[in-house]
Amino acid sequence: MHKQQLIDCHERIKPFIHNTPVLTSRLIDEMAGAHLFFKCENFQRMGAFKMRGAANAIMQLSDEQKKNGVVTHSSGNFAQALSLSAQSLGVKAYIVMPSSAPQVKKDAVKGYGGILIECEPTLAARERESDRIVNEHGATFIHPSNNDHVILGQGTACKELLELYPDLDYVVTPVGGGGLIAGTALAAYYFGNDCKVIGGEPFEVDDAYRSLQSGKIETNTTTNTIADGLKTQLGDRNFPIIQKHVEEIVRVTEEEIIAAMRLIWERLKIVCEPSSAVALAAIFKKKDELSGKKIGVIISGGNVDISALPF
Amino acid sequence: MHKQQLIDCHERIKPFIHNTPVLTSRLIDEMAGAHLFFKCENFQRMGAFKMRGAANAIMQLSDEQKKNGVVTHSSGNFAQALSLSAQSLGVKAYIVMPSSAPQVKKDAVKGYGGILIECEPTLAARERESDRIVNEHGATFIHPSNNDHVILGQGTACKELLELYPDLDYVVTPVGGGGLIAGTALAAYYFGNDCKVIGGEPFEVDDAYRSLQSGKIETNTTTNTIADGLKTQLGDRNFPIIQKHVEEIVRVTEEEIIAAMRLIWERLKIVCEPSSAVALAAIFKKKDELSGKKIGVIISGGNVDISALPF
Repeated sequence: MHKQQLIDCHERIKPFIHNTPVLTSRLIDEMAGAHLFFKCENFQRMGAFKMRGAANAIMQLSDEQKKNGVVTHSSGNFAQALSLSAQSLGVKAYIVMPSSAPQVKKDAVKGYGGILIECEPTLAARERESDRIVNEHGATFIHPSNNDHVILGQGTACKELLELYPDLDYVVTPVGGGGLIAGTALAAYYFGNDCKVIGGEPFEVDDAYRSLQSGKIETNTTTNTIADGLKTQLGDRNFPIIQKHVEEIVRVTEEEIIAAMRLIWERLKIVCEPSSAVALAAIFKKKDELSGKKIGVIISGGNVDISALPF
Repeated sequence: MHKQQLIDCHERIKPFIHNTPVLTSRLIDEMAGAHLFFKCENFQRMGAFKMRGAANAIMQLSDEQKKNGVVTHSSGNFAQALSLSAQSLGVKAYIVMPSSAPQVKKDAVKGYGGILIECEPTLAARERESDRIVNEHGATFIHPSNNDHVILGQGTACKELLELYPDLDYVVTPVGGGGLIAGTALAAYYFGNDCKVIGGEPFEVDDAYRSLQSGKIETNTTTNTIADGLKTQLGDRNFPIIQKHVEEIVRVTEEEIIAAMRLIWERLKIVCEPSSAVALAAIFKKKDELSGKKIGVIISGGNVDISALPF
């Protein structure tokens, strides 16, 4: 994907997204021994960076395709992002979600005007159900992370960050399905000044780490992590970008994630998801190498059940 | 206090404070039936608006006074604010705190370089101890809310808000010791365009409400509220300003405070104190009268124990 595509994407989605604020903390800088710039996508519309990619993907459809709507299967932020983007653009969004998903997530999708389709809680059932909607309604399937337009959209958060701080040495993101880190890596490559990208990943779902080691897409055998947004795996569209442009994937423990999350809440005074804290935990893990560096951190989202916190 | 004093105060403290961001939420606006602009003093240095007044009070001292340090008694945000302001200005701060105060608050004061003096948990003991420090060290006593320089400093948050949104119809703050609302009322009077100020106060500590009714400073008989920052009472410096310039004090229940706090956390994605939520709860209470208005809301602070939330 080319630099101009990222520029065009950003211009296209600007009316539908917030240019989110960047926060800093003297105390966290002291603890990390570096200068950290937190790009607060928890303040993004619907509460996560996913809004960017979803909006871009829908806007790239033909009028005919828009008329027939879009479909995805997700029980997380992309479900809400696609619903709200579609609503903003006057397009129908079919969201396939396992019947076992929390009611609050079902309500959120409906609140943003999404058409909720419940199915059995298996991957096979999800795919069968979304195939059916593609066939019956002519809707376009949009993958939450393995889609070029989604990847470009997610990269615009890093582009905005570099517009404010052009001389960042690093940008660090969490790694789940790979859309955010692939888009970030493209943005850092095209708009940074020798800006390297590092991914943070829980040990419990270290498919991206192992994929970079083996050179092929690996799957997770366990998904026992508090970072519920990171249980998905890489895809054939984003993996080659990650291979080419990401410096390193750093794995962190559950305890490290929770400690970093607590620090963000207590010191930045913001509500973020456990997934967001994975990036900060990775920075602490690499403290010696990152000493004195200017580091952007993508706070990926803030949709968390505040009555079930790990502290 | 004159307009020029507020202007001078703001210029004076600018190097020591953040011009904090203003957040909005489409959903909260829909619920309130009005346009709300949240001035996020939870992002202020040390996590609360108190930094403004503390910095101004210390900067108004003579060189001789600065050499002998400052003293206050507080177990809340003003203790931290005076410590950090004093540290930033190279002045000693003696903080008298009841021995029963939570360790985390004692640690915070020490972390900002304050000199912690513990005493018995009674008002008499606190006053005796701070009198002793005044006598022994020649330190200047600075009251957390009943001090003209403190009042002016606290008013600068509203001044910043009106610089961004000059046509606010209302600004709403929580009411505790009266420093914030008095300063806010002065700023709204001098810099607003017919901008009215409303205070939110828990029923459980409704001294300000009753004081406005009776025309004299009333005391609280109970302090059984989650809004721990609002248990203090008005003073002779701020009460006349409140009488003259505040439109109304609106009382809210504990349930209303907790519901408003939850909404701020879930929708604005920020960490705020229960005291901050009192202002939003007051707006909901006055929904009919405030319909369609542009309303500034001072989010007073974010220093809260995140492992002991009411939800």
